Amino acid sequence: MGKGITSRSEDFSQWYNEIVMRAELADYSPVKGCMVIRPYGYAIWENIQRQLDKRIKDAGHQNAYFPLFIPESFLSKEADHVEGFAPECAVVTHGGGKKLEEPLYVRPTSETIMYAMYSKWIRSWRDLPVLINQWANVVRWEMRTRLFLRTTEFLWQEGHTAHATAEEAEEETLTILGIYREFAENVLAIPVYDGLKSDAEKFAGAVRTYAIEAMMQDRKALQLGTSHNLGQNFAKAFNVSFQSKEGTIEYVWQTSWGVSTRLIGAIVMAHGDDKGLILPPRVAPIAVVIVPIYKDDASRKKVLKVAEECKNTIGEAAAAHIDDRDQYTPGWKFNDWELKGVPLRMEIGPRDVENEQVVLVGRDEGKKESVPQSRMRERVLELLDEIQTSLFERCTRFRDENTFDIDDFGEFAAKMESPGIFARSHWCGEPECEAAIKDQTKATIRCIPFDADEEKGQCMICAKESDRRVIFARAY
Amino acid sequence: MGKGITSRSEDFSQWYNEIVMRAELADYSPVKGCMVIRPYGYAIWENIQRQLDKRIKDAGHQNAYFPLFIPESFLSKEADHVEGFAPECAVVTHGGGKKLEEPLYVRPTSETIMYAMYSKWIRSWRDLPVLINQWANVVRWEMRTRLFLRTTEFLWQEGHTAHATAEEAEEETLTILGIYREFAENVLAIPVYDGLKSDAEKFAGAVRTYAIEAMMQDRKALQLGTSHNLGQNFAKAFNVSFQSKEGTIEYVWQTSWGVSTRLIGAIVMAHGDDKGLILPPRVAPIAVVIVPIYKDDASRKKVLKVAEECKNTIGEAAAAHIDDRDQYTPGWKFNDWELKGVPLRMEIGPRDVENEQVVLVGRDEGKKESVPQSRMRERVLELLDEIQTSLFERCTRFRDENTFDIDDFGEFAAKMESPGIFARSHWCGEPECEAAIKDQTKATIRCIPFDADEEKGQCMICAKESDRRVIFARAY
Repeated sequence: MGKGITSRSEDFSQWYNEIVMRAELADYSPVKGCMVIRPYGYAIWENIQRQLDKRIKDAGHQNAYFPLFIPESFLSKEADHVEGFAPECAVVTHGGGKKLEEPLYVRPTSETIMYAMYSKWIRSWRDLPVLINQWANVVRWEMRTRLFLRTTEFLWQEGHTAHATAEEAEEETLTILGIYREFAENVLAIPVYDGLKSDAEKFAGAVRTYAIEAMMQDRKALQLGTSHNLGQNFAKAFNVSFQSKEGTIEYVWQTSWGVSTRLIGAIVMAHGDDKGLILPPRVAPIAVVIVPIYKDDASRKKVLKVAEECKNTIGEAAAAHIDDRDQYTPGWKFNDWELKGVPLRMEIGPRDVENEQVVLVGRDEGKKESVPQSRMRERVLELLDEIQTSLFERCTRFRDENTFDIDDFGEFAAKMESPGIFARSHWCGEPECEAAIKDQTKATIRCIPFDADEEKGQCMICAKESDRRVIFARAY
Repeated sequence: MGKGITSRSEDFSQWYNEIVMRAELADYSPVKGCMVIRPYGYAIWENIQRQLDKRIKDAGHQNAYFPLFIPESFLSKEADHVEGFAPECAVVTHGGGKKLEEPLYVRPTSETIMYAMYSKWIRSWRDLPVLINQWANVVRWEMRTRLFLRTTEFLWQEGHTAHATAEEAEEETLTILGIYREFAENVLAIPVYDGLKSDAEKFAGAVRTYAIEAMMQDRKALQLGTSHNLGQNFAKAFNVSFQSKEGTIEYVWQTSWGVSTRLIGAIVMAHGDDKGLILPPRVAPIAVVIVPIYKDDASRKKVLKVAEECKNTIGEAAAAHIDDRDQYTPGWKFNDWELKGVPLRMEIGPRDVENEQVVLVGRDEGKKESVPQSRMRERVLELLDEIQTSLFERCTRFRDENTFDIDDFGEFAAKMESPGIFARSHWCGEPECEAAIKDQTKATIRCIPFDADEEKGQCMICAKESDRRVIFARAY
């Protein structure tokens, strides 16, 4: 294990990097800005993929795969889009030993290449809606990178739909945001605010961007997912049109939406503590680690036999793993699995074998209990559910305790600086005031929340009238 | 449906393209050499991934993800490897609006970037074996491309392992080839020859390459998967070493292995007929399509009710789909689902409702039968198993009927030209004779089969002694 881990209070950012590296979630690669997702981190991603993919498919979408490369001329067709993305692209200029006639951009996102195909595939209202999702790698050149949170290459899913009416597109945009919210809360155990982005924060080429936003333990915001209503901007640029039931030719209405490997960073920063990761049971590659405790070969044999029986009894209901490494002490193993955030530890020693019991210890609060082997399976599953819920509740409590209604800009700026907060404050709606706030405090509008009550107030900067509070925070 | 499909006998290559396009497996993209995998084709890939991934994990491997980009200096470290791959790479020269100091190659395969990390991670014999697999996209610049078979970008899995001994590495190489073989035969319903590649055909950087090879319906060979014993070639180039139990520092022994989206092309060419695709039930996105037959609203309602009941009764046991599109006739639907290769069709008309039966039609041989609804589920599952088996047997028969022991080079050349064959022929082992055969007939050594009996003979070209036959064919 080596030396101790930097504490969160000492240096949150350093703590984060140490946890990610030591728990073997990821590693720096020799390619500037790119990371390696190690097996333990990738197994979390596979759990995210499996559970989110099911939700996306249940909502009627199908997966497909589009090219990695985008011809320069395609990226340029939607004016805002190219302005937003071209400067951060990686560009292929040579292929097969020759200079290319037209440079190819490595996709930073796939609107342009996908909609060129949609234009070919969609002819009639009968072809609509098109509901396609893609799991893929994308590349956005980053100067300052952080493992999982901001890397030049990352993995994500990107959904891209086309509809006959503006109403259907808006409904789809919101349906997906709802799926993201439910997934974040029920699977990742992270509460989120959902709402609309201001124009300054919206996707390059979108009419409206919605997002879910979560508070990390340093009280900064992390955007977990976005859902864009693209209107007809791309449809017009790529001539994605259809013959309506009435026989007229119309442009389609489109949406796009995505979440990325950044979610793994969110899990680390939302739940971890000074001992290491704490993984919500629903995304943990190992939900229960069984640590056998023994002194000699005879007790080793007895204890391991019970450990095997327990693993088999749990079966497919939870991912159990027996740590039977002989070269490490039980104490060393406890630390190791705490670092790796395994939600539940089962200890089995010779006395437990005699008493036909096991000891269960929760990673979240360290609660320890003895359970008869006859009730082991039932209690393990109960505890995993309890840990899943208790992580969500702890995270919600932390966020709510650090979210304030603030009307005075002096107070806003001071609290934003230290200790860091989510502020619910009035804003007039003008980009100038939004920019002034960002300049002076580094805080941005995270979202204009769906559930904000109507409430009269004054913009913190210009004192103009506002009729609802929006959420400000410093963000990753 | 439009006009008829070119028949296989008329123009196999044209037939292949038409099937892939019309069944909506894939489409050409605006990016030269890159294809779009459409939802129906991607669903086949997902079925391949799920079933192969399980086998790979059950054999002890874990998934991970490594960067898309490889610095030029890394690719160059293994001499044969760079010679083999550099000429077909796409090269990123600009990123974030600036010219890069060192060009980045888009990965054509990931040995170099992965082993640079292995060199960092592996310290002791306790860290071995490393058993990692990656599902990813790779890019190899191709001049002449064919959908699924040869495209500039393709999807694949690549396994990369490191071991303490040469024996373990060889065992791993063969274990994986065995998994590939079992998967091809039991899931894809494609029989394969397995064996060793000649030096001319081996992977750039490998000591030995093993492969599985299948015969397509035009009697050409398609390589379905390869497994490479890399020896210590890369370990030396990347300094992947470990302290042995005895305390000495040793280089690791490595393997790499992969299969790609090419497998989808194999399914098309191995099983399809002049009406379209024929999908083995175990990879079919839809295993049973239920076509309701009705004349009016009243019969429509009754028939659809039974269709729903049947779908629910089948449940998770097989992927059933009801085609309730009102704008198409049952006949049109039959053709459409035959084109799409759905293995089993269930017809339900008003008379079937009355008689409490359904009609089942197999896609492979068109056999039709009436089954009481009470036995429907059981019979559907039986038939799907029968179709899976019968496709494998048909494919095996075809291959065996077109595989010949040939000793005379004149006969070899003539049959290789037309109708095309797999020839089991003697070869002295010299690259010169192998090259002469390729020059004159376009046939290459597909593999030196594992199960070849020892048999004395003479090389077809130089008449030198040979002690076993190898398999020659023209290949994709």
